[in-house]
Amino acid sequence: MGNRQVTLAQRPTGMIDESTTSLVETPIPQCGPHEALIKVGLLSIDPTIRTWMNDAPGYLQPIGIGDVIRSGGGGVVVESKSERYQVGDVVNGVTGWQEWAIASETNRFTVLPKGLGLDLATVMNVFGATGLTAYFGLLDVGAFKVGDVVVVSGAAGATGSVVGQIAKARGAGKVVGIAGGPEKCSEVVERYGFDECLDYREARLTQRIREACPQGIDLYFDNVGGAVLDAALANIAMYSRIVMCGAISQYNATEREGVANTSMLIMRRGQMKGFIVFDFAHRYAEAHVELAAMVLDGRIIHQEHFVSGLEHAPDALNLLFTGGNHGKTLVVVDESVQLN
Amino acid sequence: MGNRQVTLAQRPTGMIDESTTSLVETPIPQCGPHEALIKVGLLSIDPTIRTWMNDAPGYLQPIGIGDVIRSGGGGVVVESKSERYQVGDVVNGVTGWQEWAIASETNRFTVLPKGLGLDLATVMNVFGATGLTAYFGLLDVGAFKVGDVVVVSGAAGATGSVVGQIAKARGAGKVVGIAGGPEKCSEVVERYGFDECLDYREARLTQRIREACPQGIDLYFDNVGGAVLDAALANIAMYSRIVMCGAISQYNATEREGVANTSMLIMRRGQMKGFIVFDFAHRYAEAHVELAAMVLDGRIIHQEHFVSGLEHAPDALNLLFTGGNHGKTLVVVDESVQLN
Repeated sequence: MGNRQVTLAQRPTGMIDESTTSLVETPIPQCGPHEALIKVGLLSIDPTIRTWMNDAPGYLQPIGIGDVIRSGGGGVVVESKSERYQVGDVVNGVTGWQEWAIASETNRFTVLPKGLGLDLATVMNVFGATGLTAYFGLLDVGAFKVGDVVVVSGAAGATGSVVGQIAKARGAGKVVGIAGGPEKCSEVVERYGFDECLDYREARLTQRIREACPQGIDLYFDNVGGAVLDAALANIAMYSRIVMCGAISQYNATEREGVANTSMLIMRRGQMKGFIVFDFAHRYAEAHVELAAMVLDGRIIHQEHFVSGLEHAPDALNLLFTGGNHGKTLVVVDESVQLN
Repeated sequence: MGNRQVTLAQRPTGMIDESTTSLVETPIPQCGPHEALIKVGLLSIDPTIRTWMNDAPGYLQPIGIGDVIRSGGGGVVVESKSERYQVGDVVNGVTGWQEWAIASETNRFTVLPKGLGLDLATVMNVFGATGLTAYFGLLDVGAFKVGDVVVVSGAAGATGSVVGQIAKARGAGKVVGIAGGPEKCSEVVERYGFDECLDYREARLTQRIREACPQGIDLYFDNVGGAVLDAALANIAMYSRIVMCGAISQYNATEREGVANTSMLIMRRGQMKGFIVFDFAHRYAEAHVELAAMVLDGRIIHQEHFVSGLEHAPDALNLLFTGGNHGKTLVVVDESVQLN
């Protein structure tokens, strides 16, 4: 029995395909001093993984050719030489796309809370990078205020759907989603409780945002970049805050789309601010408490989209860009790994 | 004797030309209760005037067809029915492109300080919107810190040149200008004391910024927008602040240039923030004290570019876009109006 891994075979141009990754098998890693051996259960499939495959400046080093694809994941501790982890602990961290991972002092995993009645998928979705990004992006970076007219792109996505729900729960004046296609738009309104959802695939997005937000957008949470960001910029209210969270429309692009309306920031005294959720690591506990309460009492509705088998992780990543997923995309590597 | 005025005849496409404005003569306005009559001496020619000619969303209403072109100006009070103004006061405010203007309760002018040894042109340059924009943009919007690597576009311009000089005086790590052509670049370094100046008309601006700022830009003060903004974005340091002051490259454009590197804000946790100097009106006095001291002791070198005759105000405006001016552009309407 070995450790199956998905590694980077060559850097992709545009969408990843069969030539991008290799499925290899190596020995199960040895657990050294102060380390723990993790059996991986679920992989968290996030758009940012695509950016790590490029040889371009980013917030982390690019994944090296031949290296395991970097990724969040959840698993169970099966052997430990670390005081930090006990055998049987269910943990969340940077596992990579593989069946076995090592948790060390430099690669710290979070030990997940048992007994809350929350399963591993839920915890990896709402309490993982996805939910934390929504929480700190909206409340801290966006400086959300009661009464704000909030617009969220990627609204059917794992992060966007949580952003809108937190905004509603905290007293937004109006929450408008932007998503791709009528099915996702209806999901955003019916399932996640947004006031309205606009389909970016239809014409006249700028005008339709204006109709939905006649007083302008107070807070725009951007997951997509490109033309949707431009349409939002055209509609910002005075002192508007634009949270730059992601630019999924651009991650596979061979040439980036330009944003023409940046001078609206001058006219409306707006600000655009980028962030990475890791910057808030020292405050995750605060977010976990509030997010757990909101999940348990139903103020946050969440949804996971499962793809079975480590070997399908590349397909799962592509789903994020084709819009074929619903909610948080997770790859099931070993379904026996459970939190409760 | 009447009041010669330059009015908006039709909205321009691209650069303004003879069909854009009309020179008309109307009676000298009557001074009503709580008003003062101003004889205009100098007009402040600012790029933003071009934006007011468009029928597009802005921070002020567009200038109406047939209306006097909105503009800052300086003049002397010749008649007053207001306690605010005394006959003989030299004042600065929104005069418009005309020979006579009315100061009222809603259209308040600033009474300028006599006896400091500063002439009207200097005061309108450094203490007018130009210098105040530099001061509040750099220090407040940009949250300038000692040691910052500062890059300023439009560096030979009235605002940009002051931004760089304040940054140097306050202890910037390095101050790099961006300007158009070798003559302006040498002026930026020789006259205004920037550490370096890059010519945006030469190729490879992105790479040249990288060479000038190998650790990245901490504070970028943007007066021009478009491709120069994009090249700066590609070079921001972590937690960089981008001050969105103007977008002169786009004001005459019939189609705006897109900015492709906005997702660098995410990677580097940067922010772009727009402002209008009027927002700081309650704090002008604080800036005046510091700016006066810096002008008087030579830490701020300034330069005025005079164009004679009200009828040449449209040509003076075009100079800002062709780069034909050096320093602050002022139109002399009546040279007998003096501060000292």
